[in-house]
Amino acid sequence: MSLTPRMIKDAHKHVKKVTHPTPVVYSPVFSAETGHEIWMKPENMQRTGAYKLRGAYNKIRNLPEDCRSKGLIASSAGNHAQGVAYAAQMAGAPATIVMPVTTPLIKVENTRKYGAEVILHGHCYDDAYEKAMDLAHHEGYTFVHPFDDYHVMAGQGTVGLEIMEEIPDADIILVPVGGGGLISGIAVAAKSINPNVKVIGVEPLGARAMKLSLDRGKLSSLDLVNTIADGVAVKTPGSKTFPLVQQWVDEIVTVSDFDIMEAFLLLMEQHKMVAESAGVLALAGAKKIRPASGGGLKVVSVISGGNIDVVTISTMIDRGLVSRGRVCCFSVDLPDTPGELLKISELLFRTHANVIKLDHNQFKTPDRFQQVQLEVTIETNGHGHLSDILGTLVGAGYVIKKIV
Amino acid sequence: MSLTPRMIKDAHKHVKKVTHPTPVVYSPVFSAETGHEIWMKPENMQRTGAYKLRGAYNKIRNLPEDCRSKGLIASSAGNHAQGVAYAAQMAGAPATIVMPVTTPLIKVENTRKYGAEVILHGHCYDDAYEKAMDLAHHEGYTFVHPFDDYHVMAGQGTVGLEIMEEIPDADIILVPVGGGGLISGIAVAAKSINPNVKVIGVEPLGARAMKLSLDRGKLSSLDLVNTIADGVAVKTPGSKTFPLVQQWVDEIVTVSDFDIMEAFLLLMEQHKMVAESAGVLALAGAKKIRPASGGGLKVVSVISGGNIDVVTISTMIDRGLVSRGRVCCFSVDLPDTPGELLKISELLFRTHANVIKLDHNQFKTPDRFQQVQLEVTIETNGHGHLSDILGTLVGAGYVIKKIV
Repeated sequence: MSLTPRMIKDAHKHVKKVTHPTPVVYSPVFSAETGHEIWMKPENMQRTGAYKLRGAYNKIRNLPEDCRSKGLIASSAGNHAQGVAYAAQMAGAPATIVMPVTTPLIKVENTRKYGAEVILHGHCYDDAYEKAMDLAHHEGYTFVHPFDDYHVMAGQGTVGLEIMEEIPDADIILVPVGGGGLISGIAVAAKSINPNVKVIGVEPLGARAMKLSLDRGKLSSLDLVNTIADGVAVKTPGSKTFPLVQQWVDEIVTVSDFDIMEAFLLLMEQHKMVAESAGVLALAGAKKIRPASGGGLKVVSVISGGNIDVVTISTMIDRGLVSRGRVCCFSVDLPDTPGELLKISELLFRTHANVIKLDHNQFKTPDRFQQVQLEVTIETNGHGHLSDILGTLVGAGYVIKKIV
Repeated sequence: MSLTPRMIKDAHKHVKKVTHPTPVVYSPVFSAETGHEIWMKPENMQRTGAYKLRGAYNKIRNLPEDCRSKGLIASSAGNHAQGVAYAAQMAGAPATIVMPVTTPLIKVENTRKYGAEVILHGHCYDDAYEKAMDLAHHEGYTFVHPFDDYHVMAGQGTVGLEIMEEIPDADIILVPVGGGGLISGIAVAAKSINPNVKVIGVEPLGARAMKLSLDRGKLSSLDLVNTIADGVAVKTPGSKTFPLVQQWVDEIVTVSDFDIMEAFLLLMEQHKMVAESAGVLALAGAKKIRPASGGGLKVVSVISGGNIDVVTISTMIDRGLVSRGRVCCFSVDLPDTPGELLKISELLFRTHANVIKLDHNQFKTPDRFQQVQLEVTIETNGHGHLSDILGTLVGAGYVIKKIV
């Protein structure tokens, strides 16, 4: 058995009964940024906030009735949990999801909302996975793998069919890559309709297991994954997905956490849409695709999911503000005499710097009897404004050390 | 002249050529929260990020050709700026927008992007308004009012026509109220189609000028406005909008900044959509509508705009985390002896409290030779988890003072 176009078409007949339509959206801003014509397939607006329910539903509907009625089990701290819970509810099958105890409450609640039993177990994914396998073995539950399963891949491939229906003349489809389930499905689906469409995967630089495997020509593992895109933080691609990626995927490009953050903020500011870090990989990757000699290409970027904790959103914004020059933290050594704070405050006021934090500390300079260190965090209008402010301070004789 | 259904229908023929479709979205989560069947009209996903282009475009297209070619002028630090700039570009007319110098850079850039000339002038809206009137007078530009103009209202009313096309059996339409242009247009439009539909306005408690005017039976002004919903922070409703609201609007309800924040976060977490504070007023207001005796009503909440600075998003999230018990800051006085920090650290570790800030200050307690004050900011999984943590500390004999 492998993955065939027929399996994906067959999946689509059923999957579309339980999904929201997610029509592609044209992006003037990402088009201007990349020189291509960029369309977005917003699976962050999908039910459960991600494409995962497609594969899960297709897996469950293909099970023999007795397996379905015994129940499903899955382990996940993320989108797969909600996808399986929702798909099981739609198929009328009981589901148990094992999640690490550290899972944010909102993800636990959302999974329970779809009627699944949630077991909190262990402190990482691997602990939860072991527990799920154990339960599958002892209780007779069917384990639903997040990617390394042909029925799961066929379900995810329905995203590719929809893209080809909507943008039949796409030149490139960009797809986030974790375990490889989504891109396998999309590549097989899209190329069965138009063999000339390129399917390109996007991985974070710190979790490029698929690229490593392709480069080495064999399934390979990373010792360590390190990325803000936790949804694709996979050490080893699937043993079933990898050969499909080898055969059908044209290329894998990598992006930095910084690229991800920029794409995340642009999407939020310009399209009013929230996506998770892994979800914006394909938007971040669009910058890496060189325009053809004849100009820009027609590119569809899959936004794979939108389940992100508000704390993480806040962190992304904070980092983004620093990288855009909207927030800056610097230190300056001042003589420890009266009036020094007044002088610098006057300059900050005059340049419209908005002070958001001050730390005045006489212990931080080596020569502490004559100097204090002032640490200033300011908010500005951007890089131009920031240069004006720092230029004014330097012009007045201060020695500025930028911290962030 | 007043506002007629015919003007709105006429406006729609033209306005729909320059707008995105914004189909209504059903919200299971707001429905569950309110006991009604809640639909959202997402004008935050509209071109320019708000409904404002509708009124501006209708105003401009109704001008005599010589006025149009002389050019338009408007003053705004918000959505009206982008709306007029975009509408003028679509109508092929030059536009000048006066914005306060304190306007966030991104709003200035977005306005320039649509080809308008931006003049930065003054430190508040009133300064910018005076400058705009001055330029209108001296240069012969036509001033485009943000709400108190029948053609502008007719354009905004097209939102109401679209809602009635999509949800013809709506019981209630909830609309954010600032100057009153949007709700006047929607009320006249919707009631011309179904006289039984109720149109209810939502104002922030700190900017309830329309409610005040209705209660007093005459146009009235607030001395002071104080709300996070800056898009509707209006001291006096329009002299043309007010009589229309008196005649056609059924009721005005008010919501707190806290209600706004909760609606903002829910929309972001569950629908992956970003809206501005004023934009979510009608979602926040849905909680104030009592279900009828027969059960829930069919309610359409207009999300009026999505232009929000990322700094403001971050602030909304921070406040939200505190109100959900996800972040807590408390102080505790400790004996100033070795090992005390270790003891409390041990308890925080054991209860899985994530410490995000510590301030250890021996100057803050009156009896500073024997005690230090420790200020601790922690992140938790929510109210239940927070109670466990504080309970454990109190149980160990600490006296906790909650700061936020």
